[in-house]
Amino acid sequence: MGNDDQTFNTKIIPLRTKIDNIDSQILSLLKQRHAQVEHVVKLKKKHQIPVYHPAREEDLISKLRIQAQNANLDPDFMEDLYRVILRQSRVEQTGQMEHKGIRPGAKVLIVGGAGQMGRFFASLFLKSGYDVKILTRQDWDNAKQLCKNVDLCLISVPIEKTETIIEQIVPFLEPKTLLADLTSIKTKPLEKMLAAHPGPVTGLHPIFGPTSGSLDKQIIVVTPGRDSDSCKWLKEQLTLWGGIIVESSAAEHDEIMEIVQALRHFATFCFGQFLYERGTPLERTLEFSSPIYRLELGMVGRLFAQDSSLYAEIIFATPERRNLLKEFISSLSQHFEMLEKNDKDLFISKFKHIARWFGPFSEQAMRESTFLINKLTERF
Amino acid sequence: MGNDDQTFNTKIIPLRTKIDNIDSQILSLLKQRHAQVEHVVKLKKKHQIPVYHPAREEDLISKLRIQAQNANLDPDFMEDLYRVILRQSRVEQTGQMEHKGIRPGAKVLIVGGAGQMGRFFASLFLKSGYDVKILTRQDWDNAKQLCKNVDLCLISVPIEKTETIIEQIVPFLEPKTLLADLTSIKTKPLEKMLAAHPGPVTGLHPIFGPTSGSLDKQIIVVTPGRDSDSCKWLKEQLTLWGGIIVESSAAEHDEIMEIVQALRHFATFCFGQFLYERGTPLERTLEFSSPIYRLELGMVGRLFAQDSSLYAEIIFATPERRNLLKEFISSLSQHFEMLEKNDKDLFISKFKHIARWFGPFSEQAMRESTFLINKLTERF
Repeated sequence: MGNDDQTFNTKIIPLRTKIDNIDSQILSLLKQRHAQVEHVVKLKKKHQIPVYHPAREEDLISKLRIQAQNANLDPDFMEDLYRVILRQSRVEQTGQMEHKGIRPGAKVLIVGGAGQMGRFFASLFLKSGYDVKILTRQDWDNAKQLCKNVDLCLISVPIEKTETIIEQIVPFLEPKTLLADLTSIKTKPLEKMLAAHPGPVTGLHPIFGPTSGSLDKQIIVVTPGRDSDSCKWLKEQLTLWGGIIVESSAAEHDEIMEIVQALRHFATFCFGQFLYERGTPLERTLEFSSPIYRLELGMVGRLFAQDSSLYAEIIFATPERRNLLKEFISSLSQHFEMLEKNDKDLFISKFKHIARWFGPFSEQAMRESTFLINKLTERF
Repeated sequence: MGNDDQTFNTKIIPLRTKIDNIDSQILSLLKQRHAQVEHVVKLKKKHQIPVYHPAREEDLISKLRIQAQNANLDPDFMEDLYRVILRQSRVEQTGQMEHKGIRPGAKVLIVGGAGQMGRFFASLFLKSGYDVKILTRQDWDNAKQLCKNVDLCLISVPIEKTETIIEQIVPFLEPKTLLADLTSIKTKPLEKMLAAHPGPVTGLHPIFGPTSGSLDKQIIVVTPGRDSDSCKWLKEQLTLWGGIIVESSAAEHDEIMEIVQALRHFATFCFGQFLYERGTPLERTLEFSSPIYRLELGMVGRLFAQDSSLYAEIIFATPERRNLLKEFISSLSQHFEMLEKNDKDLFISKFKHIARWFGPFSEQAMRESTFLINKLTERF
């Protein structure tokens, strides 16, 4: 084998060197591409043309797929590769975009600006040239001073404190100040803001964690309150930072959030609790599992990596939510008899009804989750 | 603006041409890289050296990260890009590897070979040079002939038919034949195989759908039955196809599958049923949602895109499973009072217990799911 090893090494080393060489050339081309894209961005900004153009991206992907096919390379591979490349330039471009302020110099007061979400918005406003002030628990003696001439007062405090804080801050505000909150429920805070403050009012709910680092493609629900003309600049600013604005009434928002937040997190909590009760051997179940189970268990684990009181607030926020969750528990009990009687036919008939109701979303979900499972298998 | 448009176009067109040019060069380098990798694979095969070498991959990634940094490119971007490139060559290499047979020419009979999973294994064995026969519902008159001299008889029929089919096929088998099944429960089928067949026996449970297309990195649970020496080649063959073998007793397997399959799918079913009962506006909830909700709702939708009777079989498979699910329903009922009494403190205390029990998995789940959320945001 010694001799054979030597032959192998003599042959493989030059091949590896060639590959390394090719990789260096790819790197250098990526560098050149990067520089050219920067020129394009500068030019577009000068001519006030939107930097990111989805249509052009899709055209490019189509063209590259054809080129790949002609060169006998897998077009899916080429697409995956360029999705990475295009994403990178998009991220860099938005990074440059984000700084642009609609009303640079305007005064923004963030009440609760020491919390995670408050800090996140403070840094966005700061980077865009706003005059940002923070009001934390310790600053109430100074509230009058802090509220002077404020253009936007943004309430970013825990759910259970929102209404009290609104009451406390409003006496210091001028009528022209735009008052907005970031609470994840909207009916009560909006009512309170409208009752307490005579000026422009809007509710906001950023549907993402402050850990995302950017507003790019993040959803913000806007529940209009009063004088929407005076609130327009704020929506424009959020859009310019990459956010996607969804308008809704406070009532619709809260009803949907009962499902999207409370029910979902409660169901996950119940699942985790049951695994814990039974002392399920988690590690061993993972050894036995497909990537999709790992992903689903990951969703459960993810909940419990986060702050318990945050989730208590979300789940117990309103009597309506608690009622919904009680209904959920009752809905589960209906299946007890089906299991008791081993009634597969009933299960199948229920299953088919639900499947019909889910409609095209199921197919789409199948495709999306398969895409993710592949990503997961590839990485880990 | 007309004049301005013209200036813009005059300037941007050459820049775009340059980028297109760079992309063509990248494509051509990828093509060259591909060719070099093929040389390496051939050489490795000739010298019987494993083709895929994770350590070399990680070395390469580290080197490229440093090179990227030196060239002022984002090292994470470079890593993402090369994960795509390396994955592609791995897929192509395993594609070539998969064909290798441990016992080419050996006779394999697949009972239920017309089903999806049966067809999947039939095609793997065929590609690796085995002599593959299929026995479907219509072929029982011919069973004696089909079973003659068979080296491996693989049972691939729906759960509820497994035991009957084992009883029916065994009289035709020779004692030397290795008998194996692919059922997703193991205790009963394994008992039945051991009781009916005097020769080598092993239980298998491939933990993945037949739609995956390849065995690469897929888990197969092996529950040994009798004469494991005679079963060894089969395990080696599965490994060579890229499968990951997890050994377990039939009892442990079934207990874990109660959680991994029955409980999980049942919980998802209940969630879907409740959304349906309430007529939740799915589309609108998605407009309001973070990528992680989309992902979680996708897991629910995914279930209902699949075959109702398959899930009925999984959920109702054994009395033990049905009992577990009844316990799950009861476990949920315990939370009714907590909601009724608005007892946030109890919730928080339970939450913290579960979080402690989940331990390091939670952190890991947080990281993994964040990675996936980014992939999702990037793609859609």
